[in-house]
Amino acid sequence: MSRLLYLQSGGPTAVLNLSAQGVIETARELGVSVCAAADGLAGLQGGRLLDCDALSADDLAALGRQPGAAFGSSRHILPPFDAAPAEWQQLAGVLQRHDIRQILLNGGNGSMETALLLQQLAERFALPLTVVGIPKTIDNDLEATDFSPGFPSAAKYLASSLREVLFDMRSMAQGRVFILETMGRHVGWLAAAGCLAALPDEAPPLLLLPEVAYDEERVFAAVQEQVAAQGYCAIVVSEGLRSADGRFVAQMHADQVYGHEQLGGAGNWLAQRIQQGLQLHAHVAVADCLQRAARHLLSAVDARLAYEVGRKAVQWAVAGQGGVMAGIARVVTADGCDWQVLPQPLAAVANLERALPAEFIAASGLDVTPACRAWLQPLLAGEVPLPFADGLPDMRRLHFPPLPHP
Amino acid sequence: MSRLLYLQSGGPTAVLNLSAQGVIETARELGVSVCAAADGLAGLQGGRLLDCDALSADDLAALGRQPGAAFGSSRHILPPFDAAPAEWQQLAGVLQRHDIRQILLNGGNGSMETALLLQQLAERFALPLTVVGIPKTIDNDLEATDFSPGFPSAAKYLASSLREVLFDMRSMAQGRVFILETMGRHVGWLAAAGCLAALPDEAPPLLLLPEVAYDEERVFAAVQEQVAAQGYCAIVVSEGLRSADGRFVAQMHADQVYGHEQLGGAGNWLAQRIQQGLQLHAHVAVADCLQRAARHLLSAVDARLAYEVGRKAVQWAVAGQGGVMAGIARVVTADGCDWQVLPQPLAAVANLERALPAEFIAASGLDVTPACRAWLQPLLAGEVPLPFADGLPDMRRLHFPPLPHP
Repeated sequence: MSRLLYLQSGGPTAVLNLSAQGVIETARELGVSVCAAADGLAGLQGGRLLDCDALSADDLAALGRQPGAAFGSSRHILPPFDAAPAEWQQLAGVLQRHDIRQILLNGGNGSMETALLLQQLAERFALPLTVVGIPKTIDNDLEATDFSPGFPSAAKYLASSLREVLFDMRSMAQGRVFILETMGRHVGWLAAAGCLAALPDEAPPLLLLPEVAYDEERVFAAVQEQVAAQGYCAIVVSEGLRSADGRFVAQMHADQVYGHEQLGGAGNWLAQRIQQGLQLHAHVAVADCLQRAARHLLSAVDARLAYEVGRKAVQWAVAGQGGVMAGIARVVTADGCDWQVLPQPLAAVANLERALPAEFIAASGLDVTPACRAWLQPLLAGEVPLPFADGLPDMRRLHFPPLPHP
Repeated sequence: MSRLLYLQSGGPTAVLNLSAQGVIETARELGVSVCAAADGLAGLQGGRLLDCDALSADDLAALGRQPGAAFGSSRHILPPFDAAPAEWQQLAGVLQRHDIRQILLNGGNGSMETALLLQQLAERFALPLTVVGIPKTIDNDLEATDFSPGFPSAAKYLASSLREVLFDMRSMAQGRVFILETMGRHVGWLAAAGCLAALPDEAPPLLLLPEVAYDEERVFAAVQEQVAAQGYCAIVVSEGLRSADGRFVAQMHADQVYGHEQLGGAGNWLAQRIQQGLQLHAHVAVADCLQRAARHLLSAVDARLAYEVGRKAVQWAVAGQGGVMAGIARVVTADGCDWQVLPQPLAAVANLERALPAEFIAASGLDVTPACRAWLQPLLAGEVPLPFADGLPDMRRLHFPPLPHP
């Protein structure tokens, strides 16, 4: 029996398993058997495959409701053939043994490079194999797609949470500073989403992006101005904020930080600078994994497209259209905009990193432009109710039977 | 025209303004005019009162949807008469000038002490004034009430968020440690709520409570055991965790922490101990104000009772029943439990602090007992849909006209 193989790769998102649900349900419609690698490429190399054909309709709904990577993920990527011929040989053996005809790799830019190499592996070992990439990352740093599934929900979570906290800030606005640290080690898309939190009649949060070197004089002036004008100041700082010499501020050591070694991330670092430089106390929230696991606060656009990229990837793979990623294209309509899923060459995505473009960053370096706001806003549209049971998200672990060794 | 005066005091919660809505709507039903102090007691002393009679039904709905303290809050408390006779005199003047007949003080244990003193002030200056307290605090440290409004929603937010992150943790479970830092500087109720996050088939998160001195040997052994058994370990740590000598771990300095001064809170401190002692990397999320502002994830029990304590407080105050706080009593029913609101003497609450009782803390010191779980679970029941607009919580700022100087 030939099979389609699905892999999850890299850090999870709140909608990653909706792509998995889209893959499995679509393959079923097409009469194609599906298995998944346990722990992504790491499990595939070890021959640890999971049988997805036994999942009930109820299981599939539960799958789509789970944050995380239901099959397990890893950061393992495939090295080029010359660097690891034995690894290629072994992988080819596993694929052949299980008669894998399609591989769908659900990951970020490193995974798309691996997808490209898997397509080369098929050619080198003459395997009848079609490889298609499915995009995923909360960082939104993938090229050749309007957005990466996972990003809109994380953006919605961050902007909504900050909007709520702004009401808290206003309540006791006597020189209060609030800092929200977001993920995004190399690009500022997640921090930029904070721009949507403010109400029309208040100052926008200051955004400290990895794309803009930290300029203390400018930041301090902006904090003082907002505190003077409205009594409080909110700051969204990316974990990847860097100083002018290119180092992460969170990694600065000893004498650079008033003689202490820095512990914690960019948020705590900034709070300390503000405390010492402006004598203002700052609250620091670090969203960490909460922002990528917040299944209770999905963007409906994100949920729909996450499912759809999985669906389209199966259709193309089964039709033999490989070497592509399911890219998302924005289409402007009379009512606003919509999205369609189109094939993009893997080479246009693999190992590339999309930063916030210059036209999205305001001249101050501490805000985004109206063009960026207009681009972001539609991505957050719509909510997805999550069932609760006994007051908590109704989620269960799924257990997948291993695929028997053929 | 005589008036009822409403004050918000101390740190906000996600349901504080539902109590305000309950107060204003009930007073209206009774034909009583309502004003509120801007910024709590601080504004009252300055004679800054806000007119609540002009609020439309739509405004009142918007009020109940806002996190924070809509009228502004402060941590100001009233000193005893002997310590501040001029302050008492001035307050009496403001209350007399505006013909205030009822005061409803919505706050925590310090505010209930202030409520007691305000009742004494009425007697001393022969003002026809009835004072009633309305409980509020996410810390849940108030005596004479089953729970403090604000706590169940914060508990639900923390437990739900951690449940979601546990799915993320399982996805890449290769020795991962996740630490969630909660509020609760002196008591462990919020951290305890983390116990509800785990699924039945996994180890419960380790709970590091302020009531139990940090015992590193025990914590490290438990972390290692969970990582060995399931590949990951989740820890919920209260910001108020203390060492055996009674100091907050987050305030330990220099030589106690491997020669570095500690920056950031208990979560980062613990991550560093685990990194250095066990060579395990820990992710740290700090919920900070997010946990008390998360209006999008209310407990329906909390929302209902927050409104009800405001309502009952008005009824009692207007009937002249002062010197009490609207306490919440749990009633066991055939189906589970319900709550009713009963008057409790302010003196039974003022300046007292309710810690987690010994029978709620497991023998390990790193978990709670089944009795605690059974007590917590019903508080999280039910959800409260929040309207969204353009993908974000639909909230607006309310502007209250100042009460004219009479």
